[in-house]
Amino acid sequence: MEAAQVSIYGMSTSGNCYKVRLLLEQLGRDYQWHEVDSANGATHTADYLARNPNGKVPMLETSDGRRLVESNAILHWLAEGSALLPDDPWQRAQMLSWMFFEQYSHEPYVAVARFISGWTPLDSPRRAELPRLRAQSAQALAVMETHLRQADWFSGKHYGIADIALFAYSHCAGDGGVDLQPFPHVRDWLLRVRQTPGFVALPAVDAEVARRLAASQQDDH
Amino acid sequence: MEAAQVSIYGMSTSGNCYKVRLLLEQLGRDYQWHEVDSANGATHTADYLARNPNGKVPMLETSDGRRLVESNAILHWLAEGSALLPDDPWQRAQMLSWMFFEQYSHEPYVAVARFISGWTPLDSPRRAELPRLRAQSAQALAVMETHLRQADWFSGKHYGIADIALFAYSHCAGDGGVDLQPFPHVRDWLLRVRQTPGFVALPAVDAEVARRLAASQQDDH
Repeated sequence: MEAAQVSIYGMSTSGNCYKVRLLLEQLGRDYQWHEVDSANGATHTADYLARNPNGKVPMLETSDGRRLVESNAILHWLAEGSALLPDDPWQRAQMLSWMFFEQYSHEPYVAVARFISGWTPLDSPRRAELPRLRAQSAQALAVMETHLRQADWFSGKHYGIADIALFAYSHCAGDGGVDLQPFPHVRDWLLRVRQTPGFVALPAVDAEVARRLAASQQDDH
Repeated sequence: MEAAQVSIYGMSTSGNCYKVRLLLEQLGRDYQWHEVDSANGATHTADYLARNPNGKVPMLETSDGRRLVESNAILHWLAEGSALLPDDPWQRAQMLSWMFFEQYSHEPYVAVARFISGWTPLDSPRRAELPRLRAQSAQALAVMETHLRQADWFSGKHYGIADIALFAYSHCAGDGGVDLQPFPHVRDWLLRVRQTPGFVALPAVDAEVARRLAASQQDDH
């Protein structure tokens, strides 16, 4: 893997983008962050779509102009050769398994509940989805809880990129009205992640989003 | 990676399970297939959930009883060291990017449209989701079409496991009423996949499912 500076196109308060920032900080890598307001259509301009036809952040760009999309693929590429990606093929497969779980069975509920709560108007019809999304989020957290009863991490024997992938939206699940109280092993694991070297927190949301998040939790939960 | 026999728990007509079968056949690997009727609740028995708390197929079990879930993680583990997984880190990252795309932006639409069309009653309220799922499937296929205008494969320079992952539900998108006609590069790529050595087709659905699929396409499309 090249050690040259990379550019990241991302929305700072997005968990998927935060994953990449957290890893880069923990690896001590040099990077340039380009803020993209994906909540307000900036990933669907002709210019952005020409660079990522799927219209999503984060996107990594190398100094020679090559691009990589999908947060978990970016994590995998950046972590190759580091201690955050296990050498052992079986451990690596288990780590990837959790990263696919995150994108299929976790993010579409936990992240979407947060997005609807904070980034849509308080009278948005999408808010009708919240009870179902919270129930499905609890199912995903229950699967994590079961794993954490017999393991400390999701990336094999040590902290690694599957932990980063799952931390990104698990730690702020409460933003979407998802209750972490029933999952003590998950809460302990969140604390362990916060204690890893070089940890940085998810940037704070702006006042408008914060107001909506607070209102959502009072109304619906 | 161990070359010992593996057991696969899967539903034969599921695209996610077919991925694993196709790869094992192409690698010439010995395996045992255990049919699990996931469309009728067999993944939600206490016994199955004890082995996979997320209640999904496919699941791989090694001869010494270790388990791996998530179709694309299983593909990655089985393909390590073979020509179906590129050595070059950048190519491998791009391959993983397409595999995450498949699970996040493709399967939840293309596979779910097929599932609702074939595996729910003709008067299921879920059929109201079909027009939206077909539109989102077309968006995913358009992203693939854009890539295939300048590349032959999704796994780097050669056929590999991202092609298997995307072939699984793309080739039978028509089952869910998704039209492949607007995507000529996708159709050419589907033909190229069918010509790869050791290719095996997705097993046929049973008569009841086939009847529903035919009825869905007449009614809705």
